[in-house]
Amino acid sequence: MSASSDAPRGGDGMRPFRVGLLGHGTVGAAFAALLEQRADEIERFNGRRPVLGGVLTRSRGDFEEILADADLLVELMGGIEPARGYMLRAIDAGKDVVSANKQLLSQHGEELFEAARHAGVLLRFEAAVAGVVPVVRVLEESLSATPIERIHGIVNGTTNFIMTEMAKGSTYDEALAEAQRLGYAEADPSDDVSGRDAAAKMAILARLAFGSPVHLDDVRYEGIEHLKRDDLEYAAELGLGLKLIGTAERVDGGVSVRVHPTLLYPGHPLASVSGPFNAVTVESATITEITMSGPGAGGPQTASAVLGDVVSVMTGGARPPAPPLRLELVHDIRSSFYVHLEMADEPGVLGTVTTLLGTHEVSIKSVVQRGLGESSRLVMVTHPVLESRLREALREVAKLEFVRGTPRTIRVIEEEFV
Amino acid sequence: MSASSDAPRGGDGMRPFRVGLLGHGTVGAAFAALLEQRADEIERFNGRRPVLGGVLTRSRGDFEEILADADLLVELMGGIEPARGYMLRAIDAGKDVVSANKQLLSQHGEELFEAARHAGVLLRFEAAVAGVVPVVRVLEESLSATPIERIHGIVNGTTNFIMTEMAKGSTYDEALAEAQRLGYAEADPSDDVSGRDAAAKMAILARLAFGSPVHLDDVRYEGIEHLKRDDLEYAAELGLGLKLIGTAERVDGGVSVRVHPTLLYPGHPLASVSGPFNAVTVESATITEITMSGPGAGGPQTASAVLGDVVSVMTGGARPPAPPLRLELVHDIRSSFYVHLEMADEPGVLGTVTTLLGTHEVSIKSVVQRGLGESSRLVMVTHPVLESRLREALREVAKLEFVRGTPRTIRVIEEEFV
Repeated sequence: MSASSDAPRGGDGMRPFRVGLLGHGTVGAAFAALLEQRADEIERFNGRRPVLGGVLTRSRGDFEEILADADLLVELMGGIEPARGYMLRAIDAGKDVVSANKQLLSQHGEELFEAARHAGVLLRFEAAVAGVVPVVRVLEESLSATPIERIHGIVNGTTNFIMTEMAKGSTYDEALAEAQRLGYAEADPSDDVSGRDAAAKMAILARLAFGSPVHLDDVRYEGIEHLKRDDLEYAAELGLGLKLIGTAERVDGGVSVRVHPTLLYPGHPLASVSGPFNAVTVESATITEITMSGPGAGGPQTASAVLGDVVSVMTGGARPPAPPLRLELVHDIRSSFYVHLEMADEPGVLGTVTTLLGTHEVSIKSVVQRGLGESSRLVMVTHPVLESRLREALREVAKLEFVRGTPRTIRVIEEEFV
Repeated sequence: MSASSDAPRGGDGMRPFRVGLLGHGTVGAAFAALLEQRADEIERFNGRRPVLGGVLTRSRGDFEEILADADLLVELMGGIEPARGYMLRAIDAGKDVVSANKQLLSQHGEELFEAARHAGVLLRFEAAVAGVVPVVRVLEESLSATPIERIHGIVNGTTNFIMTEMAKGSTYDEALAEAQRLGYAEADPSDDVSGRDAAAKMAILARLAFGSPVHLDDVRYEGIEHLKRDDLEYAAELGLGLKLIGTAERVDGGVSVRVHPTLLYPGHPLASVSGPFNAVTVESATITEITMSGPGAGGPQTASAVLGDVVSVMTGGARPPAPPLRLELVHDIRSSFYVHLEMADEPGVLGTVTTLLGTHEVSIKSVVQRGLGESSRLVMVTHPVLESRLREALREVAKLEFVRGTPRTIRVIEEEFV
């Protein structure tokens, strides 16, 4: 049973609530400091004082001793093993657990949820997604009675910073270097810029929103490494801004979860989220939509989200995970697309292309055509179309004699907001 | 004790969770419909099915019967009495209660909190502030371990809609008429446009954020009725947008809670919130800031927030209210100000005014001066200054021979964000 269940609400003279800590890097150290700093205040409104029990680092601490001593374990090691083994061991021992580990949750979440459900313990992980933005709690609790249709998220602050700088005129390389200089990007940024980090977070959010298991491997993702400055310029001409957006949505009774560079109209609530920020928009017919935003994960912010989870366990609030539904994963999605074509500058090419697209039921919403001497560039935004249908149409377009190179595409979120 | 405490987590064959409903207007009817619609899903993850028990309207229902039958009472009557009496009676009878009643909570909140604490019952009121935006839950739970410094909120959708229309060029009267046509404003809009509705919500948020009782009467508020189109135009020239902003902040060990038209720099997270939306920004050194936004209250949205509260009680998550702190209310606040002066168009007037302001330690950040034939208009934004000091300085400025009429002022939130 939950460790919190033997602690009555309120009252004086209760023994301290002992928190075992696995991992003492940037976040672990920030968490240990914050726990001490906030212990008085937490005791004031909870009646019970949280104290740091044992700490496990690479060089010191014994896991079994720390576990035996703890009311709750906080896992801030990152990575899969040994974090996974420790978490399962703690859950089996009946201890509530808190983790900020998005890799672990997006790849072994079902195993952990199942173990926690079986043991009747709490498993909290607010800090694994969107830093201090309380999207996990809001999905699990405030919106637990709301049928969620769709989530759009900017869930990687590094790429949002880079794309904000590119929109101001930097090249990708300049923006990445600046992100590294400011500490927003790691020396090896591939997990961020490839979209894989965002994909892990979207897998976790999709599981919460739809109750259906989504593994990191189920998420299609594209990164930002291949974006061109001129795509941002054409997008701006069309009144669109470019972001790396994660999407999780119900589609025909199934779910689709994906991450890719996406163009947004200015009215979209995520369009104004700039710099190293995270933001998540949750859509439902009942509530229209809610957007939550805040700084992406830094050490103190992540520590604050972890402490919030610890307090929620002390309060006895959360429930063990619910059993999963099983919804089909859908990969072929309707969307508007930005399409970028290089062509010979001949009369009638625009008509030929749009007619050909029309025969594939791809219709065009807006166009920018620009002559460049002997060649010309055609940039279009389509009305919503099934991706497979667009790809088929573009294969035909690419065969046209006057078309040069391969058409480039970026997905577009239609303006649906006030 | 909480009604939820005799309901174990999960399990089959439990008796239904009976919800008594007080009030059956727009929100009450929407709540009753939503409860029925979502009952299967709630039962699936809670193990217990919520059902509508008795309903009290003006013409039917007996309160004591409804109370005796209910596991929890939902109060959607609005107004002070008889809502207050019914709530106190239910709490004394040991029933958990959910309310969407901002008038009641902002004027009799301490009485209700004290009664609920004494009886050990839960009192939930997410729907009383900011519609579906889960700011109450986030403040009570996610941020309960976070020392909050300041909250800025757009907590009245009617006035935000009107000001959005005015920024596009409408007059106040045109924008109000449009809001009424669309159902965003009532026939008598005075509670909204006077700022009183927003003041009630900010009193509730301040209580949650700082733990100190704040009564509606403690909140200074100004409305939007006296805004001039040309203030919006000058503000736009200075790169500022105008919103009705509620502020609750710690000041010198006390708190200040106020609502007034406020100018924002474009970087502020509330600057892009337009139309009939609500949004709240929570600032803390630990988390930097979180912003949450969504549609202002409509019937279905409010009903959804109420149902979220009901589910949180069924889950057994929330705590009874904590005892209050008592922080001093501070009314004289440092802020930047927009200052608008009409003057005779004579040489040297700008220098005379800024020198006089300087002797009162009011320094100027930016200026727009415009000749209008015989008169001229001077629009300035000051650096942050104590309001009492600015008022004193402006009394001296008003005495200058070449100044015509009374200086107009609007508060400005300094750009503090990425």
